[in-house]
Amino acid sequence: MALPPELRALAAEVSNWGRWGDDDELGTLNLIDDAAIARGLAAARTGVRIPLAMRLDANGPQLGNVPGRINPLHTMVAINQTYTGDVGDACFNDDTITMGLQAATHWDALGHVGYDGFLWNGFPASTVSADRRLTRCGIHRVTSVVSRAVLLDVARAKGVDMLERGYPITEADLESAVELAGLRPEPGDIVLVRTGKMALFKARDREGYTISPSPGLTVGTIPWLRRHDVAAVAIDTFAMEVWPGEDPAVLFPVHMIQLRDVGLFQGQNFDLEALSAHCAADGAYEMLLVANPEPVTGGAGAPTAPVAIK
Amino acid sequence: MALPPELRALAAEVSNWGRWGDDDELGTLNLIDDAAIARGLAAARTGVRIPLAMRLDANGPQLGNVPGRINPLHTMVAINQTYTGDVGDACFNDDTITMGLQAATHWDALGHVGYDGFLWNGFPASTVSADRRLTRCGIHRVTSVVSRAVLLDVARAKGVDMLERGYPITEADLESAVELAGLRPEPGDIVLVRTGKMALFKARDREGYTISPSPGLTVGTIPWLRRHDVAAVAIDTFAMEVWPGEDPAVLFPVHMIQLRDVGLFQGQNFDLEALSAHCAADGAYEMLLVANPEPVTGGAGAPTAPVAIK
Amino acid sequence: MALPPELRALAAEVSNWGRWGDDDELGTLNLIDDAAIARGLAAARTGVRIPLAMRLDANGPQLGNVPGRINPLHTMVAINQTYTGDVGDACFNDDTITMGLQAATHWDALGHVGYDGFLWNGFPASTVSADRRLTRCGIHRVTSVVSRAVLLDVARAKGVDMLERGYPITEADLESAVELAGLRPEPGDIVLVRTGKMALFKARDREGYTISPSPGLTVGTIPWLRRHDVAAVAIDTFAMEVWPGEDPAVLFPVHMIQLRDVGLFQGQNFDLEALSAHCAADGAYEMLLVANPEPVTGGAGAPTAPVAIK
Amino acid sequence: MALPPELRALAAEVSNWGRWGDDDELGTLNLIDDAAIARGLAAARTGVRIPLAMRLDANGPQLGNVPGRINPLHTMVAINQTYTGDVGDACFNDDTITMGLQAATHWDALGHVGYDGFLWNGFPASTVSADRRLTRCGIHRVTSVVSRAVLLDVARAKGVDMLERGYPITEADLESAVELAGLRPEPGDIVLVRTGKMALFKARDREGYTISPSPGLTVGTIPWLRRHDVAAVAIDTFAMEVWPGEDPAVLFPVHMIQLRDVGLFQGQNFDLEALSAHCAADGAYEMLLVANPEPVTGGAGAPTAPVAIK
Repeated sequence: MALPPELRALAAEVSNWGRWGDDDELGTLNLIDDAAIARGLAAARTGVRIPLAMRLDANGPQLGNVPGRINPLHTMVAINQTYTGDVGDACFNDDTITMGLQAATHWDALGHVGYDGFLWNGFPASTVSADRRLTRCGIHRVTSVVSRAVLLDVARAKGVDMLERGYPITEADLESAVELAGLRPEPGDIVLVRTGKMALFKARDREGYTISPSPGLTVGTIPWLRRHDVAAVAIDTFAMEVWPGEDPAVLFPVHMIQLRDVGLFQGQNFDLEALSAHCAADGAYEMLLVANPEPVTGGAGAPTAPVAIK
Repeated sequence: MALPPELRALAAEVSNWGRWGDDDELGTLNLIDDAAIARGLAAARTGVRIPLAMRLDANGPQLGNVPGRINPLHTMVAINQTYTGDVGDACFNDDTITMGLQAATHWDALGHVGYDGFLWNGFPASTVSADRRLTRCGIHRVTSVVSRAVLLDVARAKGVDMLERGYPITEADLESAVELAGLRPEPGDIVLVRTGKMALFKARDREGYTISPSPGLTVGTIPWLRRHDVAAVAIDTFAMEVWPGEDPAVLFPVHMIQLRDVGLFQGQNFDLEALSAHCAADGAYEMLLVANPEPVTGGAGAPTAPVAIK
Repeated sequence: MALPPELRALAAEVSNWGRWGDDDELGTLNLIDDAAIARGLAAARTGVRIPLAMRLDANGPQLGNVPGRINPLHTMVAINQTYTGDVGDACFNDDTITMGLQAATHWDALGHVGYDGFLWNGFPASTVSADRRLTRCGIHRVTSVVSRAVLLDVARAKGVDMLERGYPITEADLESAVELAGLRPEPGDIVLVRTGKMALFKARDREGYTISPSPGLTVGTIPWLRRHDVAAVAIDTFAMEVWPGEDPAVLFPVHMIQLRDVGLFQGQNFDLEALSAHCAADGAYEMLLVANPEPVTGGAGAPTAPVAIK
Repeated sequence: MALPPELRALAAEVSNWGRWGDDDELGTLNLIDDAAIARGLAAARTGVRIPLAMRLDANGPQLGNVPGRINPLHTMVAINQTYTGDVGDACFNDDTITMGLQAATHWDALGHVGYDGFLWNGFPASTVSADRRLTRCGIHRVTSVVSRAVLLDVARAKGVDMLERGYPITEADLESAVELAGLRPEPGDIVLVRTGKMALFKARDREGYTISPSPGLTVGTIPWLRRHDVAAVAIDTFAMEVWPGEDPAVLFPVHMIQLRDVGLFQGQNFDLEALSAHCAADGAYEMLLVANPEPVTGGAGAPTAPVAIK
């Protein structure tokens, strides 16, 4: 079922269409201004680096639940291969990979989801094709993702290691996390939301991580993120939003409205466990985040290997 | 032909085996210490971000000259696909990719090249296999690459837009670039070497970029890089080293000695054109560089989407 | 430019829409009846087997001229791998492949080409999608291809080893080949057309084979094939039809009319050199042909490893 | 554990090494002589064609139990794509595939399994590499597979639809099937062994088909197949041999001895259900079988789309 009237109203309310011009394909990433970068650099106090990516290999979170989105298949095309037959010469190891672009830690392109025939900023859905892929709102438009990031550790704010299955994250939860963090996201910041669910994957419960009812964002958080003018939001779950959704008749409303109407850049499968522990230990919940997507021309998403620098 | 006596002597001289312990798989990346990070953050003065990656698509630099190393094949597995048939519902675009891990802008894993049966730090070449790939010195060991970087713009230092075909970059050339830069790399810095050759690719001369005789590093630069204890070196060419090599009987001696003996982390196909222009304009040749490789478990290399922050 | 009036008239004239029912997805393959099979079995006199497939490997005919259609990338996922570490145990070699389905010797699915919004038998072009591929007229509908085949060796009939570049094969050429063969195709037969062009590929002139002006079928042969009610036609070239086409404003009219209107099953890159020599030697130009496509669900084409049995 | 003494003795006893010369890479396929072909053609009485291949798609039997062996990933690279933008012009649908070569109905190359450092006919296991794959005993050596085939319907001979889990097929079982068939395999014939297990896959019990204890050949059938000098054996299971094996300390002894010592060409995942019903109905258990593997250069296996012609 399409968006019911109240969600259509919400979409209209939070819409950023035209805000950065009719030809814009970057959405909220436009909000990363000099001030945001300066905040980010200032947040990098000690230089400690905390990587946020899951590994890319066959043991990834994909379980076939999204058709075509496969875990990486990584194969060697050369093993200790010399060009001369003499192992005293350079012996090369070389390899290839086949993967869903959203197989593990990734950003969605703004064109990943649309509805009613349109993508972000009113670009027609027909701009997507098999031969040219995303000619509008493709991930290659995003040449870097650098800003201050704020960890909103919703799980820790609620005093748990992991939010329970299907827990719907509300505006109130985000506010609790703001309180824990001791700082509020400012326009151009990146928000990292932690549910703690990554612990299931680390414990090798892939079904629990990927398929089971999942904690995640509710539609109620959309105005909050919009109001704060965040540049991007990333989360430590497979699906971003609460699953199953709040209204079983409406599938993926958060994806729909965030990507298409707000133009809010979003990422999934970010591993925030080590970051959470570090922030809890030193009390600093802000950082410089660099999380560039691989520049796949016309991509509907791309892997990223983010690093938080505190 | 294997390394002749003088190069074996060089290899022994610059060897870092054991320097960070017998179990080390990170090589010179170990040199990135707090001071290097602090230098990097200090170099990010204005927050301007300059991306350094080539696009990932079928029009990449691979021409079949390295067997198995193919340009990305990028395909859609879903186009505006609804789960319900109603285009008022979320319509998803989803895609996959197949590529050589070193197809475009990338880092080599330290295990990418070995000789005489050994990889970096004495790990046996036999630690590489088809089923487990690089069990030692794989790219996944490199969880982030963040440091100060210095652009050594050899072409600009020599007053040209592009070094000529097959130009052998010597220690003297690096010194000229240091002089142009007005600063010298310190231990833990990353060095970006520019030949200007990327202009050929941008002009759609793929054969010129990929296959023709190429400017690049000579064995004479190995002691210089070693002496400066650089953490990593990246270049704007396909092959890193001068091609054809200085001694036609010895193939890829720079790869051999840098990767296996020095454990010097190296990257190729970095697009340094915009960076070169920016540094020439503001006179600042240092920057914060963040260039994390995608964490492919056991990878012999991985794509990276670097950003220079000045 | 769309089909001009005379070709539209031709298409209407040769159309087989509805001939085998509104739900038919097999087209002329329906013509393979008991009589055709019996003729085929009778033609297998000595049991000599002549394979007709090109090899599947990176040295195939694809040169990037058809976007996305890549030569096979073949990689090992296991090399002499034991499950126990004891080489006295079973040591497995296992591999994977990535390829364009039409990379080498293949059949097109009837759904490979349509126009004006329709595929064979009036199925809408909209039945093709990224997520379900060809839901109509996919190659998986073709569970076997077995019949008598007749070699129409146009090159030999004209007294040459290879037709010249861009040579347009006409009805008269097919008749010459019939005369050389000493027999005429009957309804349900498969026709193999030889230009001799494969010799270029065998001589490693891939550009000559794949890209240069090519001999091939003209629109004038469409009524001839239709009149003879052939079940399928295969050829030893990349493109099936003469290239460039007879009218530079009309691209691929033979594909358009044969696939969409006639529903004539067609194959390309068949290696007919050994078969040609054999038939010339023993004077027998008929054979049992078995050429099953790999049953890719929803495929727009599939590789086949044909064998002619004489 | 390596082969125990009694199995080493068996291997020596059934060994065909050198039988067709020291340079032979075809093994028992050499046994397909004119007589076998003639028998096959004679067995094609009515011309009815029964395909034996499973579909190639993402819903195949691979469940990740064999690392790297993935079900086909099939993607469109062009959907109704015109070169001119005019849908009145040829609109192309084009696609690619990535798959384990043994993902569904396939033949193993003789080089698929070796032990003690050797493959079939004494070729060193070291002839397999990442860059050249199988340089000996690769599947490309098998340019066609055509002969008389005999269905040994072990399940039907035992009066069941499906042999029970882990049922060990013995010589006595094969003899029962010979009795049911009313004919005995002759030298050069292909033997198709039916367990009935494919019914699990058709009922969508993929775990049951692929992973659960499986009926299959025991080492006791090796001398029987050798004695009959069969050219090839194919079965309707994932694993060919009984699983778990008869001796839990010895993994895959049937693969080891059949492939390496006998050089017996073997195939798996053949769908024999329709064939079984047809043979039971008309009492004719012999047929012409054409089952060419796709000619992947250096392949350790390849898909095949077999057809039985009765």
